[in-house]
Amino acid sequence: MNTEKDPVLLTPGPLTTSLITRSAMLRDWGSWDTAFNSITASLRADLVDIVNGRDTHVCVPLQGSGTFSVEAALGTLVPRDGKVLVPQNGAYCKRVVRICEYMGRAVVELPIAESTLPTGAMIEEALLRDPAITHVAQVHCETGTGTLNPLQEIAQICARLGKGLIIDAMSSFGAIEIDVRTTPFDALVAASGKCLEGLPGMGFVIARRAVLEKCQGHSASLSMDLYDQWVYMEKTSQWRFTPPTSIVAALRTAVDLFKAEGGQAARGKRYQANCDALINGMEELGFRTFLPRNVQAPIIVTFHAPEDPAYEFRAFYEKVKSKGFILYPGKLTEVDTFRVGCIGDIDRDVMQRAVRAIEETLAEMGVKQISSREMTA
Amino acid sequence: MNTEKDPVLLTPGPLTTSLITRSAMLRDWGSWDTAFNSITASLRADLVDIVNGRDTHVCVPLQGSGTFSVEAALGTLVPRDGKVLVPQNGAYCKRVVRICEYMGRAVVELPIAESTLPTGAMIEEALLRDPAITHVAQVHCETGTGTLNPLQEIAQICARLGKGLIIDAMSSFGAIEIDVRTTPFDALVAASGKCLEGLPGMGFVIARRAVLEKCQGHSASLSMDLYDQWVYMEKTSQWRFTPPTSIVAALRTAVDLFKAEGGQAARGKRYQANCDALINGMEELGFRTFLPRNVQAPIIVTFHAPEDPAYEFRAFYEKVKSKGFILYPGKLTEVDTFRVGCIGDIDRDVMQRAVRAIEETLAEMGVKQISSREMTA
Repeated sequence: MNTEKDPVLLTPGPLTTSLITRSAMLRDWGSWDTAFNSITASLRADLVDIVNGRDTHVCVPLQGSGTFSVEAALGTLVPRDGKVLVPQNGAYCKRVVRICEYMGRAVVELPIAESTLPTGAMIEEALLRDPAITHVAQVHCETGTGTLNPLQEIAQICARLGKGLIIDAMSSFGAIEIDVRTTPFDALVAASGKCLEGLPGMGFVIARRAVLEKCQGHSASLSMDLYDQWVYMEKTSQWRFTPPTSIVAALRTAVDLFKAEGGQAARGKRYQANCDALINGMEELGFRTFLPRNVQAPIIVTFHAPEDPAYEFRAFYEKVKSKGFILYPGKLTEVDTFRVGCIGDIDRDVMQRAVRAIEETLAEMGVKQISSREMTA
Repeated sequence: MNTEKDPVLLTPGPLTTSLITRSAMLRDWGSWDTAFNSITASLRADLVDIVNGRDTHVCVPLQGSGTFSVEAALGTLVPRDGKVLVPQNGAYCKRVVRICEYMGRAVVELPIAESTLPTGAMIEEALLRDPAITHVAQVHCETGTGTLNPLQEIAQICARLGKGLIIDAMSSFGAIEIDVRTTPFDALVAASGKCLEGLPGMGFVIARRAVLEKCQGHSASLSMDLYDQWVYMEKTSQWRFTPPTSIVAALRTAVDLFKAEGGQAARGKRYQANCDALINGMEELGFRTFLPRNVQAPIIVTFHAPEDPAYEFRAFYEKVKSKGFILYPGKLTEVDTFRVGCIGDIDRDVMQRAVRAIEETLAEMGVKQISSREMTA
């Protein structure tokens, strides 16, 4: 099996990973054994170090997709009589709202246009308007569009006003700087299969120890009780329930590669170069990004679909795939778009080849009109 | 890396798996792509076929460990005003009780001694005594001790009395026969990393379609709402949230190997041979099983720890591990025991070698008194 012939995943996770990382899954691990438990322990320490949180924070891994960890963080940190403010500029913000509604936690949405960012002032005003709000749940990079929300500014307002901050850093963690010393937070949620370039199957929450200690009894779910998971893990060094052993082992290798590359700074630089190469190449073809450059995170880029009637996403997707690249559909209801991820074990050369594949596909489909001239001006 | 040198996992999952299955994880899969979605679809169909449920039941896979799927089944199938009876003869039965308590569903425990089985008559009596009970949650093989609970008898009583039956078949599914035509149930829960010999990281629920259709709004968890997961999957062929792609791909390969072996009948026969070889060999060394033979499932065996003061589990475990076999600790609070699993990609020859490793270890440790003669009589 020549795995190198698989298409490159230009998606927001699962991503194209290193064969070295995937090969870590070739072994069987016992979940009770010290060899495996030392992997869990070293991973937990390394993940906290990425945000410089060793003195204040702990890492609690959890089985399932990243959304499971977002739900676990909300259900464990927000008390049953708490109230959550969600600055809402995209699909993943909406998902946070939906999670709160499901579990019966009071939630207030702060609606923001999808192509713009929340500001500290907006959030401060919302918090002052409704003193019952106990927590802010902020998505860092909104993967639905690709915005990079101003996390540090929001974190400082939450700290000043004494509100808990829960960050969904799913698609930014490891690539965009987050430092607990300047961006204080109660909990940050991310997952194995995103910018750390592991495989999907587990999430993790980096939580302020002094806060987590007080969260016993909050969760209405045994599986997703982060407090219980943390206490058990501290006591036994094991996961409470069967861990996804191969995913954990792969993440250990992926974090080793992350450190060898130079950590967050180096990874963020590579992704920025990927993003620049993608946007520059696509703009040369006539494409327009949905977001202005100044709010665009170097993670995933939303492009307006070509206006030419010869364009149809499914055919476009299949043709680009046959040339070796898997794109991602848009997630906007009002505007016809598609998305291209910049993350994974790929470099700017890969992005340039992806742009060539898109160019060839448009020619084959007879798509000429990419965007109206007046709109690109 | 010589993965064949890893110790054999004689544990109830994760298990020793085939290198063919693990190698399926060497590829990157896009979660939106048809190639991956066709794997999910074929798996769902094959899993339902194992219980002959194609006409009546559907399979809903879920991210996370098996416990996540147990919780999802309870939270989705039992309405908020429902009441669950749990025949309780071990640790995994207790976990079901704890899940219900966490999520605020009324629950009644029917306590049964750990070395004995529930009977249909006991359950019938409990159901008649408390007509408010809407569901029975029955663990099939109680992995805490190794009992095989009389599922068919219990299922028929539930059907006769019109109570919903939710089966935790985590450690029996694929090895012990369960046929919806003779063992009717509303939901059966199992996972990837048990008798199907895949890797851990996902569970699945086989649910009666006519029941699941009426479960909208029951779940207080978005991540674990099986109704929502099912409806979305039927509509889009995709998972709602990022699937553990490598675990799904590995399970596809594992189920292919399962079918090639001859399905449940052949797998059950191999495990029974493993179990017989283990118990016979251990009894020759003087060990006694915690359970009488007639209640013992061929999945995992609990042995009384040696009575000799030279015995200590941790040292015993490490020495047996150094000879190539990973054992499992006991899960009983009252009695000193350890457990040995019979499942995974192993045969009776492996079990016989494991017994030899245990024999050598006891000699090295100077353990002579395995059990009192009068107790084995």
